[in-house]
Amino acid sequence: MEAGRGIMALDQTLLPHEERSIHLASVPELCEAIGSLRIRGAPMLGLAGLAGVAIAAETGDASLAELEAASATIAATRPTAADLGAGVRRAVRRARECSSATERRQALWQLADDAVREQYEIDGRIAAAGVSLLTGAGAVLTHCNTGALATGGRGTALAVVAEAFAMGHIQRCYATETRPLLQGARLTMWELDRLGIPGTLVPDTAAAALIAAGRVGAVVTGADRIAANGDTANKIGTYGLALAAQAHGVPFFVAAPRSTFDVACPDGSAIPIEFRREDEVGGFGGQRWAPAGAGAFNPAFDVTPASLIGAIATDAGVLKPPYGRSIAAAFGVELSGPD
Amino acid sequence: MEAGRGIMALDQTLLPHEERSIHLASVPELCEAIGSLRIRGAPMLGLAGLAGVAIAAETGDASLAELEAASATIAATRPTAADLGAGVRRAVRRARECSSATERRQALWQLADDAVREQYEIDGRIAAAGVSLLTGAGAVLTHCNTGALATGGRGTALAVVAEAFAMGHIQRCYATETRPLLQGARLTMWELDRLGIPGTLVPDTAAAALIAAGRVGAVVTGADRIAANGDTANKIGTYGLALAAQAHGVPFFVAAPRSTFDVACPDGSAIPIEFRREDEVGGFGGQRWAPAGAGAFNPAFDVTPASLIGAIATDAGVLKPPYGRSIAAAFGVELSGPD
Repeated sequence: MEAGRGIMALDQTLLPHEERSIHLASVPELCEAIGSLRIRGAPMLGLAGLAGVAIAAETGDASLAELEAASATIAATRPTAADLGAGVRRAVRRARECSSATERRQALWQLADDAVREQYEIDGRIAAAGVSLLTGAGAVLTHCNTGALATGGRGTALAVVAEAFAMGHIQRCYATETRPLLQGARLTMWELDRLGIPGTLVPDTAAAALIAAGRVGAVVTGADRIAANGDTANKIGTYGLALAAQAHGVPFFVAAPRSTFDVACPDGSAIPIEFRREDEVGGFGGQRWAPAGAGAFNPAFDVTPASLIGAIATDAGVLKPPYGRSIAAAFGVELSGPD
Repeated sequence: MEAGRGIMALDQTLLPHEERSIHLASVPELCEAIGSLRIRGAPMLGLAGLAGVAIAAETGDASLAELEAASATIAATRPTAADLGAGVRRAVRRARECSSATERRQALWQLADDAVREQYEIDGRIAAAGVSLLTGAGAVLTHCNTGALATGGRGTALAVVAEAFAMGHIQRCYATETRPLLQGARLTMWELDRLGIPGTLVPDTAAAALIAAGRVGAVVTGADRIAANGDTANKIGTYGLALAAQAHGVPFFVAAPRSTFDVACPDGSAIPIEFRREDEVGGFGGQRWAPAGAGAFNPAFDVTPASLIGAIATDAGVLKPPYGRSIAAAFGVELSGPD
């Protein structure tokens, strides 16, 4: 992603078959692009939130009232994504420090540009921390897409995978298809190919069999929101992978920047879960395979309890259980109860 | 399915959008239809095996040598399916009792016709046994397709679901999409609609979240091969559902006829697992969503250990753990070791 006077980014709904950039220059265009997943991925949404408030300032009167309204509109497009909310709030805080509309517009673009550069550094620190978890793993399984496309930087879980590959700890990355929107099949397989990492696609149904067969030394995923106790909301299907990993003694790791943590959220039961359109299930693109009008259960995320997570690689190092304590230490907050 | 001088059956690869019957009148046609899943489902494959040997007799010299060669060819098309092998062996045994080619041809068609009628009775007994497991379940989750399309009769797990719905024990059936070939989305949703049972489609990734949310009172699946100790090979993805069910105290049941049991197979590790073409993953029908040439891990089945299975509904009643004992009793075989 590039900021500037608008956002330029690859339209991720068209990958891997077409590499087309889109230019988003208004809040409605941005919200449509977020809602339809043309841009997606937790940290990438943080950047989109920041840039979105800059776009709102550029296209409106840049009053605080208008920027706050725009930030609420943008955050509501993906309610589970902690980074998106954090991004718009950070932009509004910066806007409050400015005394004029002109100053606000300039400061907000500057903030968005800086944040893109910052994301590369954050992702680099996550990768450096996470690689220690994959020593001798041989092969890993990942879910959804957590690469450069997902963060605007180097990626989270996929940056850890790339670092582990570069250091010789792993020789292969298995990627789930990730129904219903197939981010693993479309985006992760495309990124693995570009990174030169041997990749193997796995139907979501086959992940437990893959783990049972001893084919992977670890499972590594990203996160969309991590509660104060370590419970982690991530792309639907993550929880099932964590259960299968536990059943076979395979470690399950999460990789995420500090912006994904929501220390105000005590545990997973307090994380809002976005349900998406029912017709995303039973077909893909223009093709339908379910009977017309079939109803569907379509949450975008599930919650993996902290008890299944072996470690969380962050830009502040590796956090280990008990997470109540390690997360509180990383964020400098007081524990509110027994750990 | 109807036998006769060939097999008439719905082409299941075209459902739910098109209801087109195919007529199979030669062994190569039958093998192509089995391999490409135009006809599928464990008990249905048993009928196809019987009818396939009759077709071989009809189109050849009906010698025992020729029938044995045809039966090996047919059984090899789906090596995990116990019913298919049992079907061709039963036909060859019948053929051996006959003294002429003419007698063999007539006896084999008769056997196939009788088997179709018999399947309705077997399925009815499975449903009657299985319904006792779903008292008060409210809603159930099923996987793949186990209805009339899968058996040529009333179905296995889906017949249990239909019986439980008719008796008021359940009000809804959730069906997984069942990647990569989407039998749940295409076939089970179509059958639920025809049966008048409210159905909800679930991405394979969302099944664990559905179970965690307390939305189902039980998980019920079919089986492709059940070992002497109760370990059960079934459509890829079944094992993950069983793990999620166990994690939330939701009972996991299997429904299958006695022909699906392979008492010569001591446990799941001895069940051959069919791997299918890699390009079945990363796309569906004419549509591709993965990068061209992406390699894939594509087993057709996984093995659910007996320890995760609460009960197995069969045409000989409900079998409960310890399965070594209950299966041996149902089949009148001696236990070969400690149960």
